[in-house]
Amino acid sequence: MYRMYDLIEKKKNNEELSKEELRFIVEGFTNGSIPDYQMSAFLMAVYFQGMTKQETFEFTMAMKESGDELDLSQISGVKVDKHSTGGVGDKTTLVLAPMIAALKVPVAKMSGRGLGHTGGTIDKLEAFPEFMTSLSEEKFITNVNTYKIAVAGQTKNLAPADKKIYALRDATACVNSIPLIASSIMSKKLASGADGICLDVKVGSGAFMKTIEEASLLANTMLDIGKGADKQIVCVLTNMDEPLGNAVGNTLEVMEAIDALQGNGPKDLMEVVYTLGSQMLLMANAADNEEKARTLLESTISDGSAFQTFCKFVEIQGGNPKDCLHMKDLLDVSYTEEVYLDSDGFVSSIDAQKIGHASMLMGGGRANKEDVIDLSVGVVLHKKVGDRICKGDSIARVYGNDKDRLMAAINEVKEAYCLTKDEVKPNKMILNIMK
Amino acid sequence: MYRMYDLIEKKKNNEELSKEELRFIVEGFTNGSIPDYQMSAFLMAVYFQGMTKQETFEFTMAMKESGDELDLSQISGVKVDKHSTGGVGDKTTLVLAPMIAALKVPVAKMSGRGLGHTGGTIDKLEAFPEFMTSLSEEKFITNVNTYKIAVAGQTKNLAPADKKIYALRDATACVNSIPLIASSIMSKKLASGADGICLDVKVGSGAFMKTIEEASLLANTMLDIGKGADKQIVCVLTNMDEPLGNAVGNTLEVMEAIDALQGNGPKDLMEVVYTLGSQMLLMANAADNEEKARTLLESTISDGSAFQTFCKFVEIQGGNPKDCLHMKDLLDVSYTEEVYLDSDGFVSSIDAQKIGHASMLMGGGRANKEDVIDLSVGVVLHKKVGDRICKGDSIARVYGNDKDRLMAAINEVKEAYCLTKDEVKPNKMILNIMK
Repeated sequence: MYRMYDLIEKKKNNEELSKEELRFIVEGFTNGSIPDYQMSAFLMAVYFQGMTKQETFEFTMAMKESGDELDLSQISGVKVDKHSTGGVGDKTTLVLAPMIAALKVPVAKMSGRGLGHTGGTIDKLEAFPEFMTSLSEEKFITNVNTYKIAVAGQTKNLAPADKKIYALRDATACVNSIPLIASSIMSKKLASGADGICLDVKVGSGAFMKTIEEASLLANTMLDIGKGADKQIVCVLTNMDEPLGNAVGNTLEVMEAIDALQGNGPKDLMEVVYTLGSQMLLMANAADNEEKARTLLESTISDGSAFQTFCKFVEIQGGNPKDCLHMKDLLDVSYTEEVYLDSDGFVSSIDAQKIGHASMLMGGGRANKEDVIDLSVGVVLHKKVGDRICKGDSIARVYGNDKDRLMAAINEVKEAYCLTKDEVKPNKMILNIMK
Repeated sequence: MYRMYDLIEKKKNNEELSKEELRFIVEGFTNGSIPDYQMSAFLMAVYFQGMTKQETFEFTMAMKESGDELDLSQISGVKVDKHSTGGVGDKTTLVLAPMIAALKVPVAKMSGRGLGHTGGTIDKLEAFPEFMTSLSEEKFITNVNTYKIAVAGQTKNLAPADKKIYALRDATACVNSIPLIASSIMSKKLASGADGICLDVKVGSGAFMKTIEEASLLANTMLDIGKGADKQIVCVLTNMDEPLGNAVGNTLEVMEAIDALQGNGPKDLMEVVYTLGSQMLLMANAADNEEKARTLLESTISDGSAFQTFCKFVEIQGGNPKDCLHMKDLLDVSYTEEVYLDSDGFVSSIDAQKIGHASMLMGGGRANKEDVIDLSVGVVLHKKVGDRICKGDSIARVYGNDKDRLMAAINEVKEAYCLTKDEVKPNKMILNIMK
């Protein structure tokens, strides 16, 4: 019917592709009738020419429909999903999901493993021995109906077109294209079947989107797709110039999340948690306005219900809830080392990429899909942007299992910090809320 | 040493690649260590970002050195090669090569088969039964030394990188990129070992380069490469708004070439032949200036030496020289049909693409490498741009072997002609000579 050659040519010449043409491409590539080399040429042409709003929507829908789609209709209530575009130290889901569930709003979250500085949410949860990240659809739905919470790894056949396209983009330097990023995220979110989607779009040196302009463009693109698909959707642009919270590493981040659920969360993390959470409650009609939503969320911390829900969640997915009280015992590291600077002053910036890389160096993240993560290693920052450092103050602690790598990580952490003599304000965490 | 991913990224971001990086790409793709899908993404990035002069040169040299290179040092004299970027009805080589050889300037020409409206020079020569288009390197050199002329199909391993890259470009809509076209042509020309290169850059609706600006850009790019490789080189920009000469088709074009060698060549064809030939003689130091060169060339027609050389050439490559006097007998067609228009006036344009397509429709060209060409079919135009047509005049004759296809071809020919009431000047054939 169509020839892929002509469609590449069309995109190259900046002509708009039709719904049928885009479906031909997505379906043909997924079933193997369109070879990799044609698809990669097409994707590179998309990188240069972009996609119109309509093209992006149709491309997303074709990917969404390329495999299984979750039917969450058996879960009562408004199901709200949350997704982050990825940053360093982002353990928001671990804190937020039990808070929302504690308010009886169902949280049915499919989560990825992800490449990068640390694992994804699913990897982090594996800090609990015996924790099951793969649930049958039935079990997933039962858990949400009974306990209001389930977090599981993506089923194998959710948006397979996206999986295949992403792998090709990743091999051909075609990752950083707004329509391709937006369609990749949204195809999975839409296939996951939630009624509302809350997107945490990270902005800054430690994020994929470096500027607020880029992030806004991505957010608007995702909003258009979501609305086109008749979903409630909101994008919160949050700061990722420094790591979020203090911990970077898998078990370390779970520990920080538990602290947060017990009322001891770092300010920047909690600001993101409350803002995203409020938007989710609004979408779920569980609160009338942002202020009331925030009060409700705060109550789940102060009354202990969020922490209890987290413990229950760990238990129903196979972990030992008692571990929640003793996460530190699960840390299996040979070395911990404090990090000091030779100067003093106010922290003006902390390069999130470098901190992430320090964790990565010690084995805390994956460079390739097959890599095994060392869940225990990582970095805990004692000083954040705006803090004062006096000579002799430890700025961070690193956790590692290899002396040489630990030393390299310490250097990375040192290099990540910039100090000034003048006082510095903490980073503003919430940059925009777009609906 | 390098990662292809990084090099795609670099090109995508419009950074200049080094000689070593370009060699890594060409060598890696040729030996299979770089997969098609990465190469096609790279080529699409080149389409959008272009290549610097230095990049184009190094890319060309890497392709040139990817396989065997002809050593023509055993041929005495200055060896001059001629190449056309391709048009409809282009039988220039068939006329020009024997003229040059008749003046004792060695013509050692490697020629392609080519896709398109008709075959390449090699296909056309196969109009002579038993003609050998594949010669051993030894035989090729002996023939040039003895008879000053040899035309052979490209050896299998001449610039294999170009073959592989071209095939990929052809499948991924990456053909129309100036640096990729220039490097493809020049890698083969340089690997063919001539001292001087005369390039006929076709311009117009029937050519790959539609405008003089594009053609000049391509010419300049090829000139830079040639000079960088220390070769004599000249580009002649010639008109391809209508077919060159009157005949389009393989045997039909050989017939026209023989007519031309006997002094009856169409004016436009001869203008191109004389201009290219003059440049070749200048490069070979066989004439002091263009005027003298032209006089020499004309003498080869008037004294019959060019035609004699052609007959000898056919003989030494296995054909029957007597066929040169009776080519018409070799035409094997079931149908010939005159084409008439319903109006009269002056021919203002003849769409070369449409005439080429008419020949193609009847089986005169290849759409795919494996297609077998029907050498006898084609079109002979009786009217060219500037000619007056009166009702009842035949404008062309079509030669075919299938009635339905013949009828379709006739329609194409009719549609190709545009008439006006006002007098029209013939096309200017030589648009520029660039050195």
